[in-house]
Amino acid sequence: MTPTEKRSRLRAILKGDVCKSPATVWDALSARVAESAGFECGILSGSVCATTLLGAPDLALQTLTEFADQIRRITRASDLSVFADADQGYGNALNAMRTVEELEHAGLAGLAIEDLVMPAHFGRRGEPELIGVPEALGKLRAALSARRDASLVIAARTAALRIEPIARVVERTRAYAATGVDALFVTGLKKVEDLDAIRAAVDIPIILGSAPGISRADVEARGVRFRLQGHAVLAVCAKAMYETYMHFKADGDAEGLRSRMATAEEMARLMRSADHENWNDAYLN
Amino acid sequence: MTPTEKRSRLRAILKGDVCKSPATVWDALSARVAESAGFECGILSGSVCATTLLGAPDLALQTLTEFADQIRRITRASDLSVFADADQGYGNALNAMRTVEELEHAGLAGLAIEDLVMPAHFGRRGEPELIGVPEALGKLRAALSARRDASLVIAARTAALRIEPIARVVERTRAYAATGVDALFVTGLKKVEDLDAIRAAVDIPIILGSAPGISRADVEARGVRFRLQGHAVLAVCAKAMYETYMHFKADGDAEGLRSRMATAEEMARLMRSADHENWNDAYLN
Amino acid sequence: MTPTEKRSRLRAILKGDVCKSPATVWDALSARVAESAGFECGILSGSVCATTLLGAPDLALQTLTEFADQIRRITRASDLSVFADADQGYGNALNAMRTVEELEHAGLAGLAIEDLVMPAHFGRRGEPELIGVPEALGKLRAALSARRDASLVIAARTAALRIEPIARVVERTRAYAATGVDALFVTGLKKVEDLDAIRAAVDIPIILGSAPGISRADVEARGVRFRLQGHAVLAVCAKAMYETYMHFKADGDAEGLRSRMATAEEMARLMRSADHENWNDAYLN
Amino acid sequence: MTPTEKRSRLRAILKGDVCKSPATVWDALSARVAESAGFECGILSGSVCATTLLGAPDLALQTLTEFADQIRRITRASDLSVFADADQGYGNALNAMRTVEELEHAGLAGLAIEDLVMPAHFGRRGEPELIGVPEALGKLRAALSARRDASLVIAARTAALRIEPIARVVERTRAYAATGVDALFVTGLKKVEDLDAIRAAVDIPIILGSAPGISRADVEARGVRFRLQGHAVLAVCAKAMYETYMHFKADGDAEGLRSRMATAEEMARLMRSADHENWNDAYLN
Repeated sequence: MTPTEKRSRLRAILKGDVCKSPATVWDALSARVAESAGFECGILSGSVCATTLLGAPDLALQTLTEFADQIRRITRASDLSVFADADQGYGNALNAMRTVEELEHAGLAGLAIEDLVMPAHFGRRGEPELIGVPEALGKLRAALSARRDASLVIAARTAALRIEPIARVVERTRAYAATGVDALFVTGLKKVEDLDAIRAAVDIPIILGSAPGISRADVEARGVRFRLQGHAVLAVCAKAMYETYMHFKADGDAEGLRSRMATAEEMARLMRSADHENWNDAYLN
Repeated sequence: MTPTEKRSRLRAILKGDVCKSPATVWDALSARVAESAGFECGILSGSVCATTLLGAPDLALQTLTEFADQIRRITRASDLSVFADADQGYGNALNAMRTVEELEHAGLAGLAIEDLVMPAHFGRRGEPELIGVPEALGKLRAALSARRDASLVIAARTAALRIEPIARVVERTRAYAATGVDALFVTGLKKVEDLDAIRAAVDIPIILGSAPGISRADVEARGVRFRLQGHAVLAVCAKAMYETYMHFKADGDAEGLRSRMATAEEMARLMRSADHENWNDAYLN
Repeated sequence: MTPTEKRSRLRAILKGDVCKSPATVWDALSARVAESAGFECGILSGSVCATTLLGAPDLALQTLTEFADQIRRITRASDLSVFADADQGYGNALNAMRTVEELEHAGLAGLAIEDLVMPAHFGRRGEPELIGVPEALGKLRAALSARRDASLVIAARTAALRIEPIARVVERTRAYAATGVDALFVTGLKKVEDLDAIRAAVDIPIILGSAPGISRADVEARGVRFRLQGHAVLAVCAKAMYETYMHFKADGDAEGLRSRMATAEEMARLMRSADHENWNDAYLN
Repeated sequence: MTPTEKRSRLRAILKGDVCKSPATVWDALSARVAESAGFECGILSGSVCATTLLGAPDLALQTLTEFADQIRRITRASDLSVFADADQGYGNALNAMRTVEELEHAGLAGLAIEDLVMPAHFGRRGEPELIGVPEALGKLRAALSARRDASLVIAARTAALRIEPIARVVERTRAYAATGVDALFVTGLKKVEDLDAIRAAVDIPIILGSAPGISRADVEARGVRFRLQGHAVLAVCAKAMYETYMHFKADGDAEGLRSRMATAEEMARLMRSADHENWNDAYLN
């Protein structure tokens, strides 16, 4: 699948009637497994990049280059339509332009630019902080102008629900939607009423971050077409690794893990061994 | 721990009386989990790099740059003494020099250069092939000469047991040991007698690849100080990912996975959140 | 200009009536200067990569990743149609597939895979060596099969003129052309008669390496549509740098170099300062 | 030379009696030429990185990864003690820690963290802006704490002379010096009196940015031990490239450029061809 085809599929989901979810992916292996589980879309967020690449909390310590390289590994290895949470665009509006350029080049299907101050300003004691609306609009317009392939999805992500009263959130989202972004990405949703208020103000598709306790049917009915389910897969892998390492530490062998392992056949399928054998036969013999 | 300290620890293991094993690691998260499970050493092989970074079989498709970058992520995130299977040295003897330079710079504790033709020559139909002894000696001497930090472990890895009669294998390993390499890395061992023959010929420490069915006590008694246990952890992760993705695909939530997940506290510990909070307090407020 | 447009321009040159030449470029600055001098095409060879990135002779020490990164910097910064001498395809036929994939992704307009053994085999004492014809054909077919954008130019490069009698060279080139490659790249040409012999055997466009003493008119009349002029610009820059450094070493100031410097206005134009100011005005204020 | 030796040489210069200057370098070739011209130190600034890698003005568009990679190419290829202007530390105090870590790993001898807001804040219309003193102190302390090799030079760079009255500049520099940084880096100096005022307040070595019209003797007498001479070499190269490209465009050949080119022998020396030939003889034959 070409990057444009991957982007068109994501667009079709956003314009459709159903709320879909992406798989959290971070390398070639996870991308292939997600595809084999039937996912059409993947997501890479800054926090997942920090966990797997840096071993650090979500503090905007990764660089745009590292983030783009990780995305490229995923898009290269799979046909997933990959959506990325591109944090604040890795700097100001001009950096956001470069962010769009690099991530589009990495084969991304869609990305979101958020209105949160990142990395944190001095003296905030961990309190999250929003950039002003005019600054956010500048960034979104910059991001839109930097897109080369018109099919690339660009979303405005807002963290405002965690910080501002709903009336101001609604104002923000209305202004964001007016820039021509393809979707509004809302995080920190706690009650369906807030989604109603936002939905009443904007008519572009909504992407929703983790919102435990709010049902898919409820959000689907309110314009949400893409819903994140959180990155629990990392904690699952961490535990699975830990138990495997302890098994080997106690001098166990692979045989003793068989029931927990993907089979050799499955691994070969994930690695596209048959394709490589065909190429071997056709071109190297 | 400095790179030199990590290297000295690996050297001490090789010179010690006990046979230890490294954990298979491939990114910051796996390195941190391996450390938390009590491992002192990690290993990254070309095949694991191919699986996680490229989604490809072990056909020497990754580049030295990709391999070095992956190693750097592991050494940066952890105090593990990382040993790498550096395949054939990514080319001829001069490339092997660059391999040593780049991997030493990436913080590696030790590496092995193998005597296998890689990537495969034309027309071999998948049959493995050894380079000649003089060529192998040239590569090993080149690798040794490229080392800047004398504490970096350089091992000669041989795949000869799978290809040549034991008498010739013994000859090879004797010649390899004479170059001054720090260890001999033997793969494809099927019977302890072969190890006896090799042990009789060389008196440097032995590193042993996967050898199912041969006990740790048996190999320890024959000079093996570092023994690989295989990369089953990848297949365990692949299965854990698959089940997690299927859970989410069925609209399950993270709550339903709780028993399979590392706890939030454990994840925070793995990400060194407390350190980051201290830095936040000390330098950003 | 999109990558496809850059590729189509190179194709048009190859299919045209005129013999054009690319500028040797290696970073964003040289690419911009070449464009400002009116060049439509640029070239990056392995040797230029070795000079500027590694400070090493042309011994195949750079990695595919390094080469692709350098190409991406050029294609990102300019509208040049960039052609790359991709050496032997960075390994065997499967590596050549990856080479095409990575270089196409880097935005290349065209590339050549050469029939020279690279890096050098053991024991050759510097003597160049060709791979066999069947192996070369496998690589070319592999390269062609790896192309995603059909407009990407793939050429077969042969060093045979330096090594084999002309009759066998002709045989080689005929076989190469039959794979469906877009052009034949001939290096080491010493006499026009050899070009006649090759031209009589193949009817695809010819790309010609440095051939001092043979005129453009002569090669144009024999089907050469793209002719390299050598990488002298590097030695010119080396001398200009040296003199500048000596000037500063003697405590000279920039004023004393004014006549040798591009003007501030020209540098601003090369850096697209006006565009950046417009973006500043539009999105950051 | 090891990184620590390179750092110690820079320290010795800062603690000595003489004011030295670094050569502006940006890749392996420029580093080698600078060394051959007798320079002991090199400098890479954000603006030079932007020019050569991105083809962009100095707007903080390059990433830390790109900057570190470029430094690594220079330190790998030469024995220059490389000093880098690390801009604002690529983010807040925690990003500054990562900046020190990555640049130290890249083999840098010294770096400066500046007190300028970078990238520009929204709505400033190009007006430069300083961060507050407490924030700057936090960054400097963070940078110092992130250093692994105590010989790495860390300097506080201030742009305050361009923005604040001298009394406040003096206050700033006194506070910066009190953090324990190894040097104070002053830019935008217009009159020697300002240097007197700063010198009276701090007793650490001073590094001076471009200060046309102020003599080396004058600044040396006031504690300046390292003085930048500007990056004119880039404009010299741009002009030399342009003229070379125009020569080839007019179908000139390398012969016609001979007087402007470094000789083949000089290029071979710069590329360390003799070393490579020795390695070839010793290890590949």
